[in-house]
Amino acid sequence: MEELMKHISYELPAWLEKIEQERKDERFVTPQSRVLLTVELAKTNTKHGGGPFGAAIFDADGRIVSLGVNLVTASGFSLNHAEVVAIMAAQQKLKTYDLHPYNLELVASCEPCIMCHGATQWSGVRSLLFGATKDDAEAIGFDEGDKHTEWRALLEARGFKVTGPIEREAAAKVLFDYKESGGVIYNADGE
Amino acid sequence: MEELMKHISYELPAWLEKIEQERKDERFVTPQSRVLLTVELAKTNTKHGGGPFGAAIFDADGRIVSLGVNLVTASGFSLNHAEVVAIMAAQQKLKTYDLHPYNLELVASCEPCIMCHGATQWSGVRSLLFGATKDDAEAIGFDEGDKHTEWRALLEARGFKVTGPIEREAAAKVLFDYKESGGVIYNADGE
Repeated sequence: MEELMKHISYELPAWLEKIEQERKDERFVTPQSRVLLTVELAKTNTKHGGGPFGAAIFDADGRIVSLGVNLVTASGFSLNHAEVVAIMAAQQKLKTYDLHPYNLELVASCEPCIMCHGATQWSGVRSLLFGATKDDAEAIGFDEGDKHTEWRALLEARGFKVTGPIEREAAAKVLFDYKESGGVIYNADGE
Repeated sequence: MEELMKHISYELPAWLEKIEQERKDERFVTPQSRVLLTVELAKTNTKHGGGPFGAAIFDADGRIVSLGVNLVTASGFSLNHAEVVAIMAAQQKLKTYDLHPYNLELVASCEPCIMCHGATQWSGVRSLLFGATKDDAEAIGFDEGDKHTEWRALLEARGFKVTGPIEREAAAKVLFDYKESGGVIYNADGE
């Protein structure tokens, strides 16, 4: 008989926790510095065998609330894009499914895919900042999905602030380096 | 100092596990029977204080692989729509982030929102079947997001089979009953 499965659970990498602890008093005041942190996370994640995507949630003072990296292959959950991991980590930390009262910003090393566009909207973060673009991710073979072509204007119409690309070159370099080094392009299409 | 947070974790309801165990040998051969199971889950979830949405993943023989209900308020994660919970439960059970080789169908009591559209695509399920429509969910105040207007054709162009609405009346009734009974409409917009 199939074992009863009481929890859905996945581990956050210890190195990610360590960065969060070490930098918890730092203030990332400029958008550039916030994007570059996520780019650093993306790069470090590839060194640990993960996908080339990082994300973070910041408060209005530029302090880290949570960090995320792509854990699709490490955790075995296709949902676990960097943005999703950062959102879940923030919600677990603040014990709420609605981050809206905290006035937070989601930052991603790459423009969100179709799923993360939706996840951003439902999380309660108030703004979105990103590094590389959908085109950069697709250039190395990642499928970003069929987002509404007007996704950005639609988010803005809902009161979200959307900024990017910022530090696109540095952000895209992590993607290109990943591809160059033979990194797995883990689209769930059976290919 | 903030406690180290090694895992992201949430509980599945015991009553949901019980249904999965009890009905594990049953074959849900017709699309109607599969949708009606998710409608039953949605209804039962509202009785336990959850949102009026259910989902399930079935194999090609019509057997249950996993069940999901909306756990946004119960788990504290905005991601936890019924479809997401069913996908994560299936991926945890089968120990893979790509369900594609298993030839599975995701069934939802209501048409997927913008995030679940993306999550469906990345999960590796091959088909999607739903009960009520986006209009039904929006009629009681749930925000379904700005999905691509051609979302269905776009999924089909990617090789997904998309069927619905099926048993719309029964599926929508759970939504209307939820609203009628004063159920919380938990959009993450600070309202």
